[in-house]
Amino acid sequence: MSDPTTTEVPSNAPTGDYTAYLLGLADDALIYAHRLGEWLTRAPQIEEDMALGNVGLDLLGQARSLLTRAGELEGAGRDEDDLAYLRDEREFRNVHLVEQPRGDFGHEMARMLWFASYQHELYSALLDSTDQVLAAVAAKAIKEVAYHRDHAGQWVVRLGDGTEVSHDRMQAGLAAVAPYVAELGDDDRASVAAAEAGVGILPSALVEGTAAHVRAVVAQATLSMPDEPRWRSRGGREGVHSEAMGYLLAEMQHIHRSHPGATW
Amino acid sequence: MSDPTTTEVPSNAPTGDYTAYLLGLADDALIYAHRLGEWLTRAPQIEEDMALGNVGLDLLGQARSLLTRAGELEGAGRDEDDLAYLRDEREFRNVHLVEQPRGDFGHEMARMLWFASYQHELYSALLDSTDQVLAAVAAKAIKEVAYHRDHAGQWVVRLGDGTEVSHDRMQAGLAAVAPYVAELGDDDRASVAAAEAGVGILPSALVEGTAAHVRAVVAQATLSMPDEPRWRSRGGREGVHSEAMGYLLAEMQHIHRSHPGATW
Repeated sequence: MSDPTTTEVPSNAPTGDYTAYLLGLADDALIYAHRLGEWLTRAPQIEEDMALGNVGLDLLGQARSLLTRAGELEGAGRDEDDLAYLRDEREFRNVHLVEQPRGDFGHEMARMLWFASYQHELYSALLDSTDQVLAAVAAKAIKEVAYHRDHAGQWVVRLGDGTEVSHDRMQAGLAAVAPYVAELGDDDRASVAAAEAGVGILPSALVEGTAAHVRAVVAQATLSMPDEPRWRSRGGREGVHSEAMGYLLAEMQHIHRSHPGATW
Repeated sequence: MSDPTTTEVPSNAPTGDYTAYLLGLADDALIYAHRLGEWLTRAPQIEEDMALGNVGLDLLGQARSLLTRAGELEGAGRDEDDLAYLRDEREFRNVHLVEQPRGDFGHEMARMLWFASYQHELYSALLDSTDQVLAAVAAKAIKEVAYHRDHAGQWVVRLGDGTEVSHDRMQAGLAAVAPYVAELGDDDRASVAAAEAGVGILPSALVEGTAAHVRAVVAQATLSMPDEPRWRSRGGREGVHSEAMGYLLAEMQHIHRSHPGATW
């Protein structure tokens, strides 16, 4: 960071759209960290409590870096905490997958497998971002999400190729997240603009790599890919969220909003 | 651990009491880790979310080591997960301080200051335990709790010596935890036996060091020590808990108990 030119946004990047793009990446990580925090001391094993806690902390770290970058570009003086705690529901740009309430452990491993596989494709592509700050965030994050992806994959195989009960529950977990997977590949306005400017990547370009990894794990786990869901989520990147999001934000933002200003 | 003699319990230690003593230490850490997990993404700042999450993970790690040691000594084949997830409320030996519901952030920092100060005295003394395994756990943990103690102390000073509002709330936080502090120094049967055998330390021997650290922080924070509470908690180490404990265990144990056996 000693060379100030490296923190400049490439001049052809439309600032508003790029900020919105970064907020989408940040909000995915922030909201999923919140959901994973709910597992601390609630997993089936203490070792797993610690693993899920660490995944949550990794995602919080990614969210912080991305929110800070978005705040810099916005130029309106909002820092990571303003962006995390003082935006309203319609301003959050995360996909529906990460805001869904916590289900059973099989559901969580299905969600983590999809999300970490997607993030792995995402950060791999962002290593080439012409925004050097984002490329640096991606370089750090890719090692973290590689671990998350492997961790979830190992559980999916262990449960899928386990007992009859664990197999059925893992299959049910895959079915439960299926309606929320397609949204990860939706090209919203901000990501199209960011991709055109060379700072971001089109979500639709990540679909095949993400699905290929999930399919390989599912096959190894003696599970099957769920049928095409009859309904699929959309609109998270435009600020349209499910009912669960309001409750989540109430919990997440209550303390900060009760004590406006940094002195408390 | 290559020298098997170092993992043997000193022969004069009464095994049942020593197991009970270790469970008390473990349960304090485990139950407080659960309460701190509730802060993930709910703290006033994202940086603080991560700090509290890391404190929780440190405590979970301490709980794992202590539960594993207790299970070894018990000789009944119970591992850390059996002990964490399959005991009933009356078998948990933590103090009431750690099981109390989450309050505001000032309350949490008051609780952490007391608990980490107590743990710092505790682990310092246990460096001399004749149980080499426990001494090794203490040697690792003391670095962690020194950080927890400093972290809480910095917040208590920042809030106490901050605005009028933050001062009052921090003072209220100290008052709220005051009825639960004396219990940390209660000498129950198991700790008396463990101290006599040289494997443990009398809780009452930790009182003065713990209180001295808290008093110094409170003075620096321009706060005052609360009045002697008219009621004080007791009995946690004998398995007598407050109403909050049942709800906490229901949350903590539900997933594991729903899937008995290790295959799910």
